[in-house]
Amino acid sequence: MNEPGRLMRAEIAEQPTILERIARERSDLEGVAAQLRRRAPRFVLIAARGTSDHAALYLKYLIEATLGLPCGLASPSITTVYRARQDLTDVLWVAVSQSGGSPDLVEATAAAREAGAITLAVTNVPGSELERAAELAVPVKAGPERAVAATKTYTATLLTVWLLVDLWRGGDGSAAVGIGDSVSKAVSDRTALRVAERLRFADRLVVTGRGYAHPTAREGALKLMETTYVSAHAYSGADLLHGPLAVVGPDEPVIAIVPSGPAGVAMAPVLERLEERSTDIVILGDDALGRAVERIPLPADVPAELSPIVEVVPLQRLAHTMAVARHIDPDAPRGLAKVTRTT
Amino acid sequence: MNEPGRLMRAEIAEQPTILERIARERSDLEGVAAQLRRRAPRFVLIAARGTSDHAALYLKYLIEATLGLPCGLASPSITTVYRARQDLTDVLWVAVSQSGGSPDLVEATAAAREAGAITLAVTNVPGSELERAAELAVPVKAGPERAVAATKTYTATLLTVWLLVDLWRGGDGSAAVGIGDSVSKAVSDRTALRVAERLRFADRLVVTGRGYAHPTAREGALKLMETTYVSAHAYSGADLLHGPLAVVGPDEPVIAIVPSGPAGVAMAPVLERLEERSTDIVILGDDALGRAVERIPLPADVPAELSPIVEVVPLQRLAHTMAVARHIDPDAPRGLAKVTRTT
Repeated sequence: MNEPGRLMRAEIAEQPTILERIARERSDLEGVAAQLRRRAPRFVLIAARGTSDHAALYLKYLIEATLGLPCGLASPSITTVYRARQDLTDVLWVAVSQSGGSPDLVEATAAAREAGAITLAVTNVPGSELERAAELAVPVKAGPERAVAATKTYTATLLTVWLLVDLWRGGDGSAAVGIGDSVSKAVSDRTALRVAERLRFADRLVVTGRGYAHPTAREGALKLMETTYVSAHAYSGADLLHGPLAVVGPDEPVIAIVPSGPAGVAMAPVLERLEERSTDIVILGDDALGRAVERIPLPADVPAELSPIVEVVPLQRLAHTMAVARHIDPDAPRGLAKVTRTT
Repeated sequence: MNEPGRLMRAEIAEQPTILERIARERSDLEGVAAQLRRRAPRFVLIAARGTSDHAALYLKYLIEATLGLPCGLASPSITTVYRARQDLTDVLWVAVSQSGGSPDLVEATAAAREAGAITLAVTNVPGSELERAAELAVPVKAGPERAVAATKTYTATLLTVWLLVDLWRGGDGSAAVGIGDSVSKAVSDRTALRVAERLRFADRLVVTGRGYAHPTAREGALKLMETTYVSAHAYSGADLLHGPLAVVGPDEPVIAIVPSGPAGVAMAPVLERLEERSTDIVILGDDALGRAVERIPLPADVPAELSPIVEVVPLQRLAHTMAVARHIDPDAPRGLAKVTRTT
């Protein structure tokens, strides 16, 4: 009999090698980066679904914080449900999709191109329909992903878009060299396994983080939900205080992502309020901030912009281990296929 | 002793009168609408938190679908956490806040104004800090809201921004006249009370809708969560198929918003997949689509753009009734204050 979660485990473990290779082969992205620099879009729209939507959110923060360009997440239904026609002159439209096969993204991308946008496909499947619909394409190069729960394509997408943005703003992408080592530490650290034991019987939980750690919170929650069926909510730390905090009770553990740097500092008031709520808090990060029942260490010296690539790994491992502990095969979650087709 | 949820119940019931008055006093908005027409922004960013974030999402769909302008939801943390400086020339920045007092929104709006954006505050508190930070202001005029769970300020905000967009595109806003009657039907219909009985012991649930019904799903889920502590997830119908569907099992009822018009039609494939999952489905809408254990009727003849104002009402009533049935006072949810201050 197959080991449950074998595919997911293997793909989590592949990440250091894949990411280091992508960081070193970054010159592949120079052509597209040069085009973006030359054509100087003034606004950016990013379209994605599911796990890729979290990569899209990361890219949004990155573009806003480092390029100073206003940026939004696109709603494909504007095109596919309402048939609206938009004027997208000076807009860069980025479609992010692991498979490059979701019909609504393909259709919305074709419509964006027709509406005057510079269109860019970011996908892990060369020659996909999405690539053909877009003017420009950037390959993710994570290799074929066989597990239903996306892991390596997520981190590879984050790194690919970071490299693209860094080259676009005139950097050389070299800060990413060595990312493989940092991810490797996260892959081999055993704290996530202890946290999985602790959360074995949790029925619901919350994952929270701010800034670049907000997409990580969302991806971590989705991964936990897909594989363990726990009811996991993700919130930016700020949004958590505006309402959903009410659900956080003793039976609702919270995983707080508290990296070093500004995204961690901004979590201080959130941790303070959480501490009043008598719940179990697991902190992802080494900082002394806050009271925690368990702390998952993060490798030091990862630049803030790149740290989401490392921070998601303990959450992937937690999802995998918790699923197996619950006698669920994370490679065969109920109700899910590898490629989802929405129109 | 006070009746539990008295304030929330009273404010739900006030909505028809408030909304009808706002629809009839729409000429107040003409000045701002004329400014927007004249200055012709090319891109829109909308900033909000909590319930107002759902009004922001509605406004985003509305602007994209009817004005054809690219639009994004702003991340205030770009300013308040990362201190990024953006170029917001040709950008309209809309800040939506019931209280107009959240420090991060005020700060991000001031920064947007300095970065060259046309800034517009939409708030229910005249003379609020947010109004003073923005160049333009539109009052919501729902009257003081005393319940912790926002209801009338939500629907009043939706109507106010719809009127603004309609005047901006050259309409006269008259399609909104009569909205009070439609909302009144939703307030008096008793099906929501029966659904509350049925969901009395649910520990988790999902609310889903597409297009204009997507913000309604999110607002309904937040309202249920704040008042009843149920673990409620909201998804656009399309996103639901990309992963979270896996959590939907027999103990996870689904409330599907299926209005007449394109947003309802687009739910057909979602309902189909949901039916395979042996769960209880409650349908908000009269359409014959799908199998349901209960159907909450929606008043006919409400234009698709305005229907979210009506559709959220049964969800507000469901939240109120379910909370009371669970012996929770929805006017005093744990861990929540009326004005949330995040920085």
